[in-house]
Amino acid sequence: MSETRTLASYLVNSRLEDIPDDVRHEARRALLNLVGCAVGGSREPAVETALKALQPFFGKPTARLLARSEQMDPLYAAVINGISSHVFEYDDTLPKNYIHPSPPVASALFAYAGANRVHGRDFIHAFLLGFETESRIGNAIYPAHYDAGWHITATTGVFGAAAAVGKLLGLSEQQMIWALGMAATTASGVREMFGYMAKSFHAGHAARNGYAGAVMAQSNFTAGDRSLESPRGFVPVTAAQYDLSKVTKDLGKTFEIRDNAYKPYPCGLVVHPTIDGCIDLYRDYHLAPEDIRAVRVRVAPLVLDLCNKKDIKRGLEGKYSIYHSAAVGLTRGKAGLQEYTDEAVNDPKVRSVREKVTASSDDSITEDQSHIEVELADGRKMVRFVEQSLGNVHRPLTDRQLEDKLRDQSVPLLGESNVNRLIDLCWRIDQLDDVSELIRATVRS
Amino acid sequence: MSETRTLASYLVNSRLEDIPDDVRHEARRALLNLVGCAVGGSREPAVETALKALQPFFGKPTARLLARSEQMDPLYAAVINGISSHVFEYDDTLPKNYIHPSPPVASALFAYAGANRVHGRDFIHAFLLGFETESRIGNAIYPAHYDAGWHITATTGVFGAAAAVGKLLGLSEQQMIWALGMAATTASGVREMFGYMAKSFHAGHAARNGYAGAVMAQSNFTAGDRSLESPRGFVPVTAAQYDLSKVTKDLGKTFEIRDNAYKPYPCGLVVHPTIDGCIDLYRDYHLAPEDIRAVRVRVAPLVLDLCNKKDIKRGLEGKYSIYHSAAVGLTRGKAGLQEYTDEAVNDPKVRSVREKVTASSDDSITEDQSHIEVELADGRKMVRFVEQSLGNVHRPLTDRQLEDKLRDQSVPLLGESNVNRLIDLCWRIDQLDDVSELIRATVRS
Repeated sequence: MSETRTLASYLVNSRLEDIPDDVRHEARRALLNLVGCAVGGSREPAVETALKALQPFFGKPTARLLARSEQMDPLYAAVINGISSHVFEYDDTLPKNYIHPSPPVASALFAYAGANRVHGRDFIHAFLLGFETESRIGNAIYPAHYDAGWHITATTGVFGAAAAVGKLLGLSEQQMIWALGMAATTASGVREMFGYMAKSFHAGHAARNGYAGAVMAQSNFTAGDRSLESPRGFVPVTAAQYDLSKVTKDLGKTFEIRDNAYKPYPCGLVVHPTIDGCIDLYRDYHLAPEDIRAVRVRVAPLVLDLCNKKDIKRGLEGKYSIYHSAAVGLTRGKAGLQEYTDEAVNDPKVRSVREKVTASSDDSITEDQSHIEVELADGRKMVRFVEQSLGNVHRPLTDRQLEDKLRDQSVPLLGESNVNRLIDLCWRIDQLDDVSELIRATVRS
Repeated sequence: MSETRTLASYLVNSRLEDIPDDVRHEARRALLNLVGCAVGGSREPAVETALKALQPFFGKPTARLLARSEQMDPLYAAVINGISSHVFEYDDTLPKNYIHPSPPVASALFAYAGANRVHGRDFIHAFLLGFETESRIGNAIYPAHYDAGWHITATTGVFGAAAAVGKLLGLSEQQMIWALGMAATTASGVREMFGYMAKSFHAGHAARNGYAGAVMAQSNFTAGDRSLESPRGFVPVTAAQYDLSKVTKDLGKTFEIRDNAYKPYPCGLVVHPTIDGCIDLYRDYHLAPEDIRAVRVRVAPLVLDLCNKKDIKRGLEGKYSIYHSAAVGLTRGKAGLQEYTDEAVNDPKVRSVREKVTASSDDSITEDQSHIEVELADGRKMVRFVEQSLGNVHRPLTDRQLEDKLRDQSVPLLGESNVNRLIDLCWRIDQLDDVSELIRATVRS
């Protein structure tokens, strides 16, 4: 019994008609969210810098990019799509394993569809299979893998991209096994990169490597047959504890995307409950920075493991700072894209509050909760306990809120009428004869 | 104190004139050996398949390959050079950490020099720095990292390639830190791939990722500053035990390449003592396969961990089978390239002996030793104990033996006079105005 083979067999034999409607709708929601993030992030320095550095190596300009007019070969398009869609930290998250699932898979698929005619039905099917693959592998190795320091979006995303592109390529079962093997042996990405451009590169690198692995497998480039479960395979090598049954249990019956969450704030999911509470406090009291003597936050241990950056200077670092997130919530009453710019991080008001924030970890608090105490100069104390954050899977963003999020990120670049059309195309993606129609709509015409 | 910064500072400030002559000569030997392996491996199915699969993605044909006439962008040239030079398992090995050091570093450098004018002095200097970098990082994490299932050539090779190309690009200290960070976060490759094409791809993938990381760092694409030593950095994430002082101790005073070993047989280094003993037995007794009742081999535990493949059908698998290696030694009296072909693996004589070989692990035997007992049909027993294998650093191949090894691999492809010229160019590499002269000499004119 090989988990790798069972998974490959499922991927090769899956039919879209066997996937329930609500699951397909969740795929549309995930893709709409991803497209908005890619447009929003497409002018970030990480994207511009990668384009400049890698341009001399681009292959024939056969592939369109999301949200940019440059064309290149599809493997580099996968890299750039990945950086654009991940760089804002505004992408989707699976709360049960902290994977950002859409960027690696969709970046590869949009790169493929930017160079090859793909029907929307096949696109959404491949997307769902890639999503399922990366999340199930993530479930098998979480939390040991993540706790060890792996960036799980990068390491599992490459499997998702390989599965998705492999499905579009029509790989045989053996070839799909090889594609998963190529994914296993190119899986990489460590958490030390959080707060740097390299972090957003992870999503593109995973997309590219998965895509390339599927292409190589199609030419019968051989790889290990048991790349997940072998003692020298991906799962045992990268996780001290794991449960391989999670890769294959109820395949085709349960769907990981039902647990997907969409962020209301462009930063690490685990600081969202703290932001919710701080925005609440801002709305109720409109505190001036100079009135605040101390802010004490109690959160789950993982929150500080991930978002403990203190002396920060750049917007990108702010996304991994619970101190900064609390400070913008309390001083600006919001935590949108403008709160994670270099300007916001260096805003004297924000900084003065940020320096008053302390955080402690508390095992009795879940990763979806936060306890916030604000002490004022006059000695008064206000307390908020957030039981469940916005954007959480139990309090999901509505379709309309997802549209608004895409609008916020896209209207400045594309204008309102183009954005209306883009939203419409996202909801109709599985009816499109050629997904490149949607890709073209992400670029200002 | 950051090991990453100390290493980066050394790389940026190193001068060739501070490196002793014997070390430079060892670099020439390593490069000569590498060039022979690349020529010998250049027509293997792994190379042909990768070329076919990836060709649609190649960038502008600015770079020459080792041993092939195709041209492409230098990053894919690094991939193909890596596969060619590693696929035969004939490349160099560091017995203290089992890294195959030259393929990742030299594949990246030859790809760079295949597209850009590089003086041989700068080439050999960059090569030595890349070699030093990967081996020191390997020392810090060996054996825990390798035992866990990582292919250490792949995972440390990417640092070597980044350091080497970064040196040629003239990176600043901060940029070199970023290049090492990009290496840390693209380091991958698991041992489950041993015996498959994906294994040889590891060397090319590492070369490519290191090269790309250096290029991105040159454009100020940021990555973590403490990518080696941080709790979420490469070393703690990939090794349960480690010693970071080995990265920096005596930098510039001791040189890793002095411990480099060159293989006399195209297979895993750890089976070499067994081959030595079996060839000795063949020479002394010329046993017929039907005379052999049983072959019992006792070796160090790692040997069976690495080379325990039994039911094999393909030449590539034979390279990871102590049973096959013992069988060819006993039946053919040699273990050259012809003994690791599909034909040899399926040769009935070889197979009949292979099936009689058993191997057991013995803690009292070092990885450089082997105890072999052959029992004949008439009940007689012959025993050999190999104390130290050929090609070992204490019994190194001479310059002349290295030339012969290159000849064996290159004459069929290039003809004798071209090979004589190629050997001459390898010995004179640091005097060449443009290393592409050597690269061109690896292709039949």
